Amino acid sequence: MNVETTICALATAPGGAIGIIRVSGADAITITDKIFSKSLSAAKSQTVHYGEIKDADGNTIDDVLVSVFRAPHSYTGEDSTEISCHGSRYILSKVIELLILNGCRQAMPGEYTQRAFLNGKMDLSQAEAVADLIAASNQATHKIAMSQLRGNFSNELAELRNQLLKITSMLELELDFSDQDVNFADRNQLLILANQIDNRITTLTHSFETGKALKEGIPVAIIGKTNVGKSTLLNRLLGEDKAIVSNIHGTTRDVIEDTTQINGVTFRFIDTAGLRHTDDEIEQLGIERTYRKLDEATIILWLIDSAPTTEEKEEIKSKTADKKLIIVENKIDKEQPSGLYPDSIKISAKFGTNIDTLESAIYKASDIPEINANDVIVTNARHYDALKRSHESISRVIEGLNIGLSGDLLSEDLRDCIHILAEIVGGEVTTDEVLGNIFSHFCIGK
Amino acid sequence: MNVETTICALATAPGGAIGIIRVSGADAITITDKIFSKSLSAAKSQTVHYGEIKDADGNTIDDVLVSVFRAPHSYTGEDSTEISCHGSRYILSKVIELLILNGCRQAMPGEYTQRAFLNGKMDLSQAEAVADLIAASNQATHKIAMSQLRGNFSNELAELRNQLLKITSMLELELDFSDQDVNFADRNQLLILANQIDNRITTLTHSFETGKALKEGIPVAIIGKTNVGKSTLLNRLLGEDKAIVSNIHGTTRDVIEDTTQINGVTFRFIDTAGLRHTDDEIEQLGIERTYRKLDEATIILWLIDSAPTTEEKEEIKSKTADKKLIIVENKIDKEQPSGLYPDSIKISAKFGTNIDTLESAIYKASDIPEINANDVIVTNARHYDALKRSHESISRVIEGLNIGLSGDLLSEDLRDCIHILAEIVGGEVTTDEVLGNIFSHFCIGK
Repeated sequence: MNVETTICALATAPGGAIGIIRVSGADAITITDKIFSKSLSAAKSQTVHYGEIKDADGNTIDDVLVSVFRAPHSYTGEDSTEISCHGSRYILSKVIELLILNGCRQAMPGEYTQRAFLNGKMDLSQAEAVADLIAASNQATHKIAMSQLRGNFSNELAELRNQLLKITSMLELELDFSDQDVNFADRNQLLILANQIDNRITTLTHSFETGKALKEGIPVAIIGKTNVGKSTLLNRLLGEDKAIVSNIHGTTRDVIEDTTQINGVTFRFIDTAGLRHTDDEIEQLGIERTYRKLDEATIILWLIDSAPTTEEKEEIKSKTADKKLIIVENKIDKEQPSGLYPDSIKISAKFGTNIDTLESAIYKASDIPEINANDVIVTNARHYDALKRSHESISRVIEGLNIGLSGDLLSEDLRDCIHILAEIVGGEVTTDEVLGNIFSHFCIGK
Repeated sequence: MNVETTICALATAPGGAIGIIRVSGADAITITDKIFSKSLSAAKSQTVHYGEIKDADGNTIDDVLVSVFRAPHSYTGEDSTEISCHGSRYILSKVIELLILNGCRQAMPGEYTQRAFLNGKMDLSQAEAVADLIAASNQATHKIAMSQLRGNFSNELAELRNQLLKITSMLELELDFSDQDVNFADRNQLLILANQIDNRITTLTHSFETGKALKEGIPVAIIGKTNVGKSTLLNRLLGEDKAIVSNIHGTTRDVIEDTTQINGVTFRFIDTAGLRHTDDEIEQLGIERTYRKLDEATIILWLIDSAPTTEEKEEIKSKTADKKLIIVENKIDKEQPSGLYPDSIKISAKFGTNIDTLESAIYKASDIPEINANDVIVTNARHYDALKRSHESISRVIEGLNIGLSGDLLSEDLRDCIHILAEIVGGEVTTDEVLGNIFSHFCIGK
């Protein structure tokens, strides 16, 4: 990617009432000026101008609003404009065509954010948080992305780096004076510090499990005999959070199909066939498949409407041994709760009785900690990989300190660890390949 | 619709890198201020402000740009803000939720444009042009919508109204002095004027045919025996104008499937089965269906690769009598053109030879006049209907003048005609029902 060129792209999805075309680069204002009916050369940063986009023959393509941003006061840190057009495909492609004719290049995916990174507006983990923020579909993933964008993860990594540098400098001081046989570094103190660092790295690494579950939604399976009310319960659970989403026009139902939010966390429901005892071989195969699908779930809702047999109980318990099992007794509007399971949740799916209790139980079973605004939770596989490798380096340091390895050998592993953590924020040399890989997953226009 | 309330809506399609939420109404700036980290109370019109949207608990929902527009310098003519967010569904619904919590109402479809109309920013035909502009998918419909938005249609109607008023006032002068038996109005001159008006109304009414064809695309059928190269030719014709459209991310292929642009006009290809002589009854039924589908087409491309029999020729000619028939001889790379049809177009669909000649012929056969920037072409069924009714009124005036009807009776029809034409621009009393019907077809956010 050539950062010398001025780039343009549609930043909004096609099909709305308005569409925004972003232009960024040294010539952004000059090029926009060429196709705009008013002069922008003296336009102040952060001002909006109403006028017409005209083609070379003087035909008006659209009445638009042009916002002007002068470097460094823009998203990319470069001179930028945003052209707010009527959301017609014809107009949008025509305006982009005109921009290209006047010297722009169509932006690559993520190129705006990449430029923001290259211009020091954000580090690499913050840039990645932008993509996460756009993809965030619930409160939890939104909070994590926002925290990362705010630099909380970067600050944590900077703190780890400082601590690692502290150990390194102490060891290097020792090396400098090695001929004098002075032992500046208290090895025990270094060991404590290294263990603290490792603990923090391990905590971050483990948070990836939570991060991943939050990103993908926590899989929940509802099992039970046919006619026990599984569909009614599912609809009941899914029905709660539609109101706001459907406020946004164009939101299609299939996007939120089979997921629901509880306390801002997404739960994903796995479709399973009904369970019932049968001698029919084919039906038995279907039931076996249901059990296999349970493997995907971390939470199982076992829905009953009458006391199950001991055999059934044993089977369910054995098949769900490594899962969180929630026993739910349905149809309390019709029948007395069996009372067989004191810990079971008694509901009426039909009338919505105790659904909030069930939701609390599902949320609790998810083991997702409450996410606070400044929490750092790793959600990115690249970060997870780097953290795992940094853990290996710091483990070698700890081992070395334990066996009394010399400072120069320890130093090498410490530098390794610092270097790996720096990869996450892109603070040191970051190869084009890594950058290309990161930004190619962005959408165009960001 | 209560125009007192401040309204908000997502103005962009969901799913892009950024999403724009529009707020309009007396409290637009105050309400936006409440959820924005910076004070907007002193913000000048047409300025952009970078800051955070925060919820009631102080959680940051997003880093946004807020553009401020102060009445009357906005689209609606009211105080307005535009909040440019990251394009996450979660963020967008959260920001809308916050705006609603702080006193906004979710906008109805077209409510922004309706307010622009009610505040005198545009007349009704211009407001309708906004929806047409957004829907415009080719140069021709874009030019027509832009011309209408620019007020060319409105000006033409205003001119007709002036002429009608001229006749009316002359007749009324006559009435005022009727007791003195003075004949102020030269009836012949009035007749000439009324005929001029009628001619113009008729021209406008007839332009609806062109307008409709341009809006829907001109239907073209490619017929011919199996293996004559129909699919190859179709792909060749469709292949030309993809480059620009696919520049826009998210443009799906099916949107432009089977339509192509020639000189800025959309042609829509009708799928037909291959024609061949057969005794098979079922196959014959398919061929009959093909012929029936031809009824939808206004242009027929008859593709041949060898001399057809006299019988075939007669059949095609009889079945396409009321259509524009273009005979196309394919496979000139392989075989000598038959030379049977001096007027046929000789092409190679495979190698793209003479496709431009064929496209010119298709365009010419469409009979679409060249559309210029200020041309007035009726594309709206509501306008068409009003024009037809105004034609009836003015015809009655002409008839009345011819048979020497008294001025007061003529006046009534003249007032009718003026009233009907005024409906188009919404200049006189426009009922809520009419407004509701017009704006409910807009998308939300416009």
